[in-house]
Amino acid sequence: MADAAATAPVTAALLVIGDEILSGRTKDRNIGYIADYLTAIGIDLKEVRVVPDEEDEIVAAVNALRQRYTYLFTTGGIGPTHDDITADSVAKAFGVPIDEDPRAIAMLLERIRPEDLNAARRRMARIPHGAELVANSVSKAPGFWIGNVIVMAGVPAIMQAMLDEVAPKLKTGVKMQSVSIRADAKEGDIAIPLGEIAKAHPDVIIGSYPFNDERGFNTNVVVRARDEAKLRAAQAAVEAMLAAWHGRAA
Amino acid sequence: MADAAATAPVTAALLVIGDEILSGRTKDRNIGYIADYLTAIGIDLKEVRVVPDEEDEIVAAVNALRQRYTYLFTTGGIGPTHDDITADSVAKAFGVPIDEDPRAIAMLLERIRPEDLNAARRRMARIPHGAELVANSVSKAPGFWIGNVIVMAGVPAIMQAMLDEVAPKLKTGVKMQSVSIRADAKEGDIAIPLGEIAKAHPDVIIGSYPFNDERGFNTNVVVRARDEAKLRAAQAAVEAMLAAWHGRAA
Repeated sequence: MADAAATAPVTAALLVIGDEILSGRTKDRNIGYIADYLTAIGIDLKEVRVVPDEEDEIVAAVNALRQRYTYLFTTGGIGPTHDDITADSVAKAFGVPIDEDPRAIAMLLERIRPEDLNAARRRMARIPHGAELVANSVSKAPGFWIGNVIVMAGVPAIMQAMLDEVAPKLKTGVKMQSVSIRADAKEGDIAIPLGEIAKAHPDVIIGSYPFNDERGFNTNVVVRARDEAKLRAAQAAVEAMLAAWHGRAA
Repeated sequence: MADAAATAPVTAALLVIGDEILSGRTKDRNIGYIADYLTAIGIDLKEVRVVPDEEDEIVAAVNALRQRYTYLFTTGGIGPTHDDITADSVAKAFGVPIDEDPRAIAMLLERIRPEDLNAARRRMARIPHGAELVANSVSKAPGFWIGNVIVMAGVPAIMQAMLDEVAPKLKTGVKMQSVSIRADAKEGDIAIPLGEIAKAHPDVIIGSYPFNDERGFNTNVVVRARDEAKLRAAQAAVEAMLAAWHGRAA
């Protein structure tokens, strides 16, 4: 059991909170960044949801996602305004009280003059009971970590700083290895043999991604696996298949 | 009832299907485009999910989302390769059979020579029973529309062509009007009066979006409403509040 746990994949979901993403007003730049980041450190991002600034929606999504994955990351809704309801919603999802946290007030005072620390800005220090703070090196107002849920800002530069802050403390799995092979063939030309290779290499994930450039339609075949030997075996099979298709020696 | 139905908001969810988005390999460009597009035609995008190329995940998400919203749009997973399982998953979600559709074969033959229409490419003509096809002016392989679910390609140019194809047939609501007001104040400076205005204008959505430029931290206040008079009243209240805060005459 200990070995199985040690090699089990570490998974995550991301919950993006904000009307502005759903209306199109703001274009999300966090999903792709977090996907890259987690992949690089050996955590599998398995699901993303975007929900509006509505308490019921946030509570339901937090509870659905935190129960399914090792970690749930959230972005957005932790500023000082009336539409920033993430902290209160997460407290409600966990069924814990939420109050002004003296540690968070101290962080805010590193940047904000005491006379400017009005009631709105003090809202940024509301932290659910039992949560650890996540430091914000950019603008000081902290995120927090409660249970397996990590609550971060929506502003990309701040979110990125918070992710750097929590990353060393995250449990990570065996890293997914990946190799991309340019097919110089259309997706439909090689789909059948590629599907056969995928079936013959069940522990390897084989993806096929069409693109086109000045020379026309083409395909990248991406082979992914946690086990290096299995990755190389599948890669060799794909390369041999492509060589045969192009009429070259394998 | 007829009047209520005519003015009820028309809602939508978007389901993005693809391992490549979750691994970070491909950066999604469809969420923001579809959010803008639906907002412009009077459909409220209420939720987005991103799931991997796994049948159980796709079926569960399709069934959860199609029951909650007027429309569900999906992107990705309708190509010719083994990892393109969206059509089969949607058929399963609806509990209907799926077969090669002669109308879809005819569309494919507009572009693909008969001798190149191999078994893989024929997979792109697999359409759930009862679905209408969505023409693809870019590369011919169609999407489809079944119940309230509209299945589109993941490649942005193709998805955009399909959206243009279905848009005239969609039910749309009263369009959300929106005005953006540059505050020339930090979010925390105006958060309390802004929250009071939001409370006093319950049919108006007021969002506060911090940004920073060469002059430092600043805020855009976005006021949104379906009713023009209510929008203008809230806008006037925000502008008066900002004028007072800046010490100018309202």
